[in-house]
Amino acid sequence: MKPSIPKGTRDFSPKEMQRRNYIFSSIKTVFERYGYNCIETPSFENLSTLTGKYGDEGDRLIFKILNSGNYLDEANKQGLSTNDTPQKFTQAISEKALRYDLTVPFARYVVMNRNTITFPFKRYQIQPVWRADRPQKSRYREFYQCDADVIGSNSLINEAELIKIYDDVFGSLNLKNIEIKLNNRKVLVGIAEVIGQPDKLIDITTAIDKLDKIGLDNVCNELTEKGITPNAIEALKPLLNFKHTSNANTIEFLKQLLNTSETGKEGIKELETVLNYFNKDESILFTLNHVDIVIDIALARGLNYYTGCIIEVKHKTESMGSLGGGGRYDNLTGIFGLPNISGVGISFGADRIYDIMEQLNLFNDTNLITTEVLFTNLGTKEEAYALPLLQALREAKVNAEIYPDTSKLKKQLDYANAKGIPRVIIIGENEIEQGKVTYKDMITGEQESLLFSDILSNYKIDAF
Amino acid sequence: MKPSIPKGTRDFSPKEMQRRNYIFSSIKTVFERYGYNCIETPSFENLSTLTGKYGDEGDRLIFKILNSGNYLDEANKQGLSTNDTPQKFTQAISEKALRYDLTVPFARYVVMNRNTITFPFKRYQIQPVWRADRPQKSRYREFYQCDADVIGSNSLINEAELIKIYDDVFGSLNLKNIEIKLNNRKVLVGIAEVIGQPDKLIDITTAIDKLDKIGLDNVCNELTEKGITPNAIEALKPLLNFKHTSNANTIEFLKQLLNTSETGKEGIKELETVLNYFNKDESILFTLNHVDIVIDIALARGLNYYTGCIIEVKHKTESMGSLGGGGRYDNLTGIFGLPNISGVGISFGADRIYDIMEQLNLFNDTNLITTEVLFTNLGTKEEAYALPLLQALREAKVNAEIYPDTSKLKKQLDYANAKGIPRVIIIGENEIEQGKVTYKDMITGEQESLLFSDILSNYKIDAF
Repeated sequence: MKPSIPKGTRDFSPKEMQRRNYIFSSIKTVFERYGYNCIETPSFENLSTLTGKYGDEGDRLIFKILNSGNYLDEANKQGLSTNDTPQKFTQAISEKALRYDLTVPFARYVVMNRNTITFPFKRYQIQPVWRADRPQKSRYREFYQCDADVIGSNSLINEAELIKIYDDVFGSLNLKNIEIKLNNRKVLVGIAEVIGQPDKLIDITTAIDKLDKIGLDNVCNELTEKGITPNAIEALKPLLNFKHTSNANTIEFLKQLLNTSETGKEGIKELETVLNYFNKDESILFTLNHVDIVIDIALARGLNYYTGCIIEVKHKTESMGSLGGGGRYDNLTGIFGLPNISGVGISFGADRIYDIMEQLNLFNDTNLITTEVLFTNLGTKEEAYALPLLQALREAKVNAEIYPDTSKLKKQLDYANAKGIPRVIIIGENEIEQGKVTYKDMITGEQESLLFSDILSNYKIDAF
Repeated sequence: MKPSIPKGTRDFSPKEMQRRNYIFSSIKTVFERYGYNCIETPSFENLSTLTGKYGDEGDRLIFKILNSGNYLDEANKQGLSTNDTPQKFTQAISEKALRYDLTVPFARYVVMNRNTITFPFKRYQIQPVWRADRPQKSRYREFYQCDADVIGSNSLINEAELIKIYDDVFGSLNLKNIEIKLNNRKVLVGIAEVIGQPDKLIDITTAIDKLDKIGLDNVCNELTEKGITPNAIEALKPLLNFKHTSNANTIEFLKQLLNTSETGKEGIKELETVLNYFNKDESILFTLNHVDIVIDIALARGLNYYTGCIIEVKHKTESMGSLGGGGRYDNLTGIFGLPNISGVGISFGADRIYDIMEQLNLFNDTNLITTEVLFTNLGTKEEAYALPLLQALREAKVNAEIYPDTSKLKKQLDYANAKGIPRVIIIGENEIEQGKVTYKDMITGEQESLLFSDILSNYKIDAF
C-alpha cells in the first residue's frame, strides 16, 4: 500500500512550518497590537448553521460529515433511496459540516454569547477552513484564514485601523508592492440607481467585478443576458471606461456620476472619511508606510453580505489571487436572530502570502534556527559525561539535543548540517580526560577546546 | 433560528484562548528545547489511511466525510441500497475522514517523505483530532493532541528524554502531583509466557489493564471468559495481588516472576536502563524535579502497536483520565510499507490539562493581559489628537487601542474593565489645551496629568 494524501491538502515539513509560523505570528502580533482578542470555534458546525450562507455554489463546496452509527436508518425512515437527489439524501445522513469560513461561525458565536460579550467586540481568529473547490495553484481544499473583526461599532475608524493592520503586517513581513483596493457597497447601489436599475444591483456588481478578467465587451454581454436595458448599459459606459489615476480624481468622478443618488453620496462620503484618516488636510492621523490604498469602483467581491466598505488586497506585479479582503456587514448576526449589530472585518490569506513570499524569495531562514547546539554521542561514557551539561544548557533556555545513538562522528555532524544546527559540542576520551569539550562552529568549520562552563556563561549572556 | 454547536465541541472565548495558548506554548517551548521540530498534516486523510489502524471500535469512531457532487452515483453503480450495511455504503460515498490521532498520519508522513527526512527524525505536532465518542466530562469530540516522537533511533535515551519533557512541561505549568507510569510490552509478553499462555497476550493485557477500574474478581472473570485456563489465572495471581512499594521492589519482583522468559528479562532490562538515566549509582544524568516515575506492571494502554516502553501520565489525587501517554513502536511505518524503523513518542492531552488546571485554580490570568492601554474617544477633535499618540505607542510595541465610537466616558472605562485593560489615556478639551493627557490606572483608580512623551519613554524602557 502506497500512502498518499487527499488532493488539495498538504503536509508541512519542519522548514515549511517555521515559515508558516513566522507569517501567523506576524499577523497575530499585529492583531493584538490593535486590541483584537483571539477566539476559536469548532472545526465542524451544525450543517444548518452553514447552509444558505454562501450561495448555492458555496453550499455545494461545503464538506459534509457523515452521521455516526447506522446513519442509513434515518434515510430509510424518510423513505429515501439512492435515486433521490444528493441534496435531499444528505439532509438525512449528515448533520455536521466543516467550517467554510470564519465569519459565519463568528456571527453564530456572537449571537450565542451576546449576554457575556462586551461590545464593541474586537476578535481575531486564525484557523483552517475547508472548501471542496477544484484544487489549483495557490487554491487548496484546506487553508488558513486569519480574520480580525469588530462588531458593535459603526465608526469608520475601524475601517481605517484594519487597513493600517494590513500596512503593519506586510511591513513586518517585508512584502512590498501591496495594493489595498477600496470600494463601498453604497457606491454600487448608487450606480444601479442612477442607471435606472436599482433592482439589478447584484447582477450589475457581479458583472462589473469581472471587468479586469473578461474585458468590457464580455461584461456588456453579461449585462444584456441578465436583462439590463441597453439604455442602462449605455449609462454605465462612462464608469466601465473610467481609468483610475488618483483617489481624488476617482472621488470627483463618482461625485458627478452619483449626484442624484442619496445612497451613492453616502458611500462616497464614507470612502472620503476612511481616506482622510491617512491624509487629513492639516495633520496626519495614521501613516501608511508599506501599502497603497486605491479606490476601485469595480470592486464588489463575490459575497453579498457587505453593506458598506469593501476591501481587497492584491500584489501589484505578481500573478496571484487576492491576499486578503474584507468589509462592513450590517446584517450578519441577523441571520441568527440578532439584528442591527454592525460589524467590519478583514482576512489574511496566509497560504497565498506564503506562496508569494516563496515566489519572491523573501524567507530568511537563518532567523528560523530551532536547535542551537548538538552534543555528539561517541559511547556510553561520553554520553554520561554529556547529559548533565546538556541539561544545564537546556535550563539556560538553549535549545539543545544529544545525538541519541552511538555512531560515527561524521554521521552525527551530517545530522547537524541537515537539521541546520549551527554548533556542535564534541565529547571524546580526550575531552573527558582534560575536563573540557570541543566546540565546533558548523558554519565556519572552526573548532576550539573550551571549558563547558565558559560556553554556558556565554549562552546565558546572549539570552540576557 | 436559535444557533447551537455540535455536541462534544466547544467555542473558546478570549480568556479561554489565552489560557489554552499558555499551555500550548509551554509544551511547544519544551519540545523545541529538546530538539523536536514541528510538522503538520492535513485535517482529513484518505479513509484507507485510517481504517484498520485503531481496531473495530476506532473504525466506528472515525468521522467520515461525504464525497462531493453526485456521490450517490457510485452507490448506484455498485448496486447498493439503503438496506446495505453502513460500512459497505460508506465505502461508496466517503473516501476521506478526519484525523483520529497524530501517530498514524505521522507514520504516513514519514513513509511518504522517507527520502528527504534525516533520521533520527524528531518531530512534534500540535493539532486537533476528532472522535465520534460519547461526550462526557473532559472527553470531547474535537480535542488537541500534542505529540513528540523520534523515529529511527533504538536508544533508550529517547524514552528518558521524553519523560524529562513531561517533567519540564508540568514544572513550567506549575502542575504538581504528577505520576509517570512506566511499563514495557516485553514484560507483558513475559507474563503471558510464564503462565503458559503466550498466544493470549492481548486478552491478558486488556484484562489486567482494567485491574484499577473493575477489581481482581472481575479481571479473573474476564480472563476465564477469554479462555485463559484456571492454572494460568492461578499463576497470574501473585502479579494481580502485587502491591507496588518502590520501583526497586517491583523490578525485583519481576526478575523472580519472569526468570524463565528471555523476552521478559529484556523488558526488565529496558525498564532499568530508563530508570538509570535518572538515578545512576555514581552520578545523576537527568534530574526529575516535578514528576515521579512509577513502574506499573498492569499498564498496557489500549493500543496494540507499542512494542517496548509504555508510558502513561496521571494526576495522583484529582479524578481525571490520563493527561498523556506514549511508548515505543517498532512496526508503525510497516503498515505503509516501510518496515524496521523504530519509533518512540509521547502525547500531552492539552484539553484535560486545561480542565485539571482550572479545577486546581492554577491559571494566573494577570500574566495574560492583551491590550495594555486604551485611549478614550470623546469627540472628533479628541480622536484626531489621540491617533498619532496611539500610533507611536503601537510602534513602541505596546498593545493599544482607541475606543472606536464617541460615547460617555463611563461606558469607555467599563469597556476597559471588562476587557482587563490596566491603563486608560483620557483625552478631553483640557488635555488638548494643556498639551497633556490624563493617565489612569484602572487597578488603583489613580490618575495623573502627564506629557504623552513621558508615558511613551516609560513604555520604551519597560520594553527594554
